[in-house]
Amino acid sequence: MVSSNTPHQPQAPINHGGAIDAASRKYGIPAEDWLDLSTGINPVGYPVTDIATAHWQRLPLASELDRLKRAACDYYGVPAPDYMVCAPGTQALIQTIPFWIRDRIDISKVHIMGPTYGEHARCWTRAGHDCAPHETASGDRFDATKEILRSAAPGTIVIIVNPNNPDGGILPPSEIAALSELAKQARSFLIVDEAFMDCQPDQSICPMIGDLPNTLVLRSFGKFFGLAGVRLGCVVMAPDLAAGLSERIGPWAIPGPTIEIARRAFGDQTWQNQTRSRLASDAVRLDDLIGANSTLTLSGATDLFRYYDGADCAKLADHLARYGILVRLFDHDHNKVRFGFPGTEPEWQRLVSALDDWKSRDHA
Amino acid sequence: MVSSNTPHQPQAPINHGGAIDAASRKYGIPAEDWLDLSTGINPVGYPVTDIATAHWQRLPLASELDRLKRAACDYYGVPAPDYMVCAPGTQALIQTIPFWIRDRIDISKVHIMGPTYGEHARCWTRAGHDCAPHETASGDRFDATKEILRSAAPGTIVIIVNPNNPDGGILPPSEIAALSELAKQARSFLIVDEAFMDCQPDQSICPMIGDLPNTLVLRSFGKFFGLAGVRLGCVVMAPDLAAGLSERIGPWAIPGPTIEIARRAFGDQTWQNQTRSRLASDAVRLDDLIGANSTLTLSGATDLFRYYDGADCAKLADHLARYGILVRLFDHDHNKVRFGFPGTEPEWQRLVSALDDWKSRDHA
Repeated sequence: MVSSNTPHQPQAPINHGGAIDAASRKYGIPAEDWLDLSTGINPVGYPVTDIATAHWQRLPLASELDRLKRAACDYYGVPAPDYMVCAPGTQALIQTIPFWIRDRIDISKVHIMGPTYGEHARCWTRAGHDCAPHETASGDRFDATKEILRSAAPGTIVIIVNPNNPDGGILPPSEIAALSELAKQARSFLIVDEAFMDCQPDQSICPMIGDLPNTLVLRSFGKFFGLAGVRLGCVVMAPDLAAGLSERIGPWAIPGPTIEIARRAFGDQTWQNQTRSRLASDAVRLDDLIGANSTLTLSGATDLFRYYDGADCAKLADHLARYGILVRLFDHDHNKVRFGFPGTEPEWQRLVSALDDWKSRDHA
Repeated sequence: MVSSNTPHQPQAPINHGGAIDAASRKYGIPAEDWLDLSTGINPVGYPVTDIATAHWQRLPLASELDRLKRAACDYYGVPAPDYMVCAPGTQALIQTIPFWIRDRIDISKVHIMGPTYGEHARCWTRAGHDCAPHETASGDRFDATKEILRSAAPGTIVIIVNPNNPDGGILPPSEIAALSELAKQARSFLIVDEAFMDCQPDQSICPMIGDLPNTLVLRSFGKFFGLAGVRLGCVVMAPDLAAGLSERIGPWAIPGPTIEIARRAFGDQTWQNQTRSRLASDAVRLDDLIGANSTLTLSGATDLFRYYDGADCAKLADHLARYGILVRLFDHDHNKVRFGFPGTEPEWQRLVSALDDWKSRDHA
C-alpha cells in the first residue's frame, strides 16, 4: 500500500471527465463535435418522453416525492423510504454532507481510500476537515481500510468508492459490512459511494442498511440511466440521519420533471436488464478494440467504463483528441487512461477509424 | 412600527403556499383536483418544448452555463456575468447563503423586515445566527430598516423582500440604494429578495449592482415564468462575493434542460410583455370579483398575487376549500388572505361559482 497523508488544500473543482470545453479550446474542435468518452455515463439514456406540463409549472407534491422514494427503494433494495434521502445530484450530496455532518458530530479526521473521484477530498477539505487521501491498489483496499478503522479515533470518517472509479476495484457486501461494524465500534462513519454499482446490483450494501447504523451509501441516478441532465442522487442511511439531512436539503429540491422521469426509470426492469446486457457487450467490444489496436492492457473496469494501462496513454489520448474523441487521463498515474463507451454505431466506427490510424502508425 | 425581537427557533419547513397535500387530506379532495391559488406563481407557464436529448443525457457545458448567465444579465439588467450566480432555485440560495456567509464573515445579527416569506428566518436560524424578525407596515418599512442599519454593529445582515410577499409593499431603487449605502458604512450586508419583481422591472436594483458592494439581490425564475418545476434562482452581487458563492454551489448545479428553457425564456421579450399585460388584467379581474362577492378589501398586491383584508378571511378560505380551491392564510394576521390567479377560463369560472355561492349566503 502506498499511502500519502498530505492534507488537500482548498482548490477549484477538479478537471473532471466531461471537460469538453477545455478540449475544445485546446484542439480547436467545436464543443458539439466531440465524441465524449471521458465520463462513465451510459451513452444510451433512458428515454425522456411526455412530461406533463403540470410537472414543469407547479411545485412537486409531497406525495410525488414519496412515490419517487418508494421507487428508488425498490430499485436499490432499500428496506423502507425513511432510509432514503433524495438530492439534486450526487455532487450536491458530496458538497452538502461535510457541512451538514460538522453541525452534528465532532469530526476528527477524514480518510479517503483512493485513488478515486476527487470531489470527495475537495468537498471535505473546504468544509474545514483534516483530509487524508490514501493511494491503494484495488487488492489492498480492504486491508488498508480495516487498518484505518481499527485505530480510528471517535468521529473518523472513511470514504470508499465501491466499485472504485477509476480502477473498478470492488469489495463484496461482506467486507463492506465488516468495515461498517468497525466504524460503529470506533464511533466513526463509513461512507460508501456506489455511483457505479448499477451493473452489479447484487454487490450493493443497500439491502443491508438496516444493520449498518454508521454507514452512508451514495447512489447516482444519472450514470447508469444515462441522464446526466437529470440531477438526482440518493443517500441511504439510518432514519435519524436521513431525517436530519432531508431537513438540511430542504423542500422542493427535486423538481417535478426529475421525479417523474426517475420514478419511471427506477420501475422499468425491462430497460434496466437490456441496458446491463448491452453495456456488458460494449465492454467486451471496447476491450477487443483496444487490445487489437494498441499495446494498452485492461487494468480495471466496471461495465460503465474501462481503465487501461500503458506507457502510451497520454499519446493515445492526444491522438484521439485530434479526431475529436475525448478520453480521461489522470494526474495520479500517467500510464492510465479511462474510456467510456460510444453510444451509436457511427460513434463506434469513428473510434475504430481513429484507433486504426493509431495502429497504422506502428503503436500496436 | 410593531417590532418583535423573539429569536426564531429551528423548525420544520414552513407550511408554504402550495401545500396541496395537507389540504387534500383535510378536505378529502384528491391532490390533482385542486385549483391552487395559494402561490404567487404565474399559472400560464413559459412553454417547454423540444428539449434536445443531449441536454438530458450529458452534463452541461461550461459554455452553456455562460450563455444562460448572459441571458439572465440581459433580462435582469445586470452589468456583467461576473455579478451573477445561478443556483437550482431561490430556495437553494436561501438555504446555502447563511452557511456560506458564516465561513466568510462574523455575523453579529440578522434582521428580517416582515411580515414576509418565512424561509429567510428559518434558514438563518438553523445556520446558528441570531435572527430578529420585524413586523412592519409597508409604509414604515424604509424608516424601520434605515433605523436598524444606522445603529448596526459590523457583520449585521438585513433582509428585505421587495416587493414584499405577502403585502406587496415596495421600496423604489433610490431607497434601496440608500439602505445599501448604510449597510456599507456599517460594514454590514443588505439582502434584497426580488422574487416578485418581474412585473415591475424598472423598480429592480439589479442595474445598480456595480455601485452596491454590500448588497445581495435574489431573483426567482419560476414565479413570473410560471415554471416552478424548473428550479432556478439567481443572486446578483459584487464579483468577489459571486465567485465565492459559485464555488460553494459547485459544478453542474443547473441541469442542461433548465439552462435551455431559462435561456429561451429570458430572451423572449414578446412573451414577457404579453404576460405582464395578462397578469395586470388578471389582477383587475380578481379584485373586481372579490369586491363584488365579498366584504374583503385590497390590502396590498403585486401582479402575481393579491392580498386582501377582512374579518371573514378564514371562513372564505374554508368555503373555497370545499370547492377544491386553495388560497393562502397567514399566522401573522388572521384577517388577511392571499390569492394567486386562475390560469384558464374554466378555472376562473370555477372561482366565480364558488364566490357566487359565498355571496348568496349573505357574506357580501
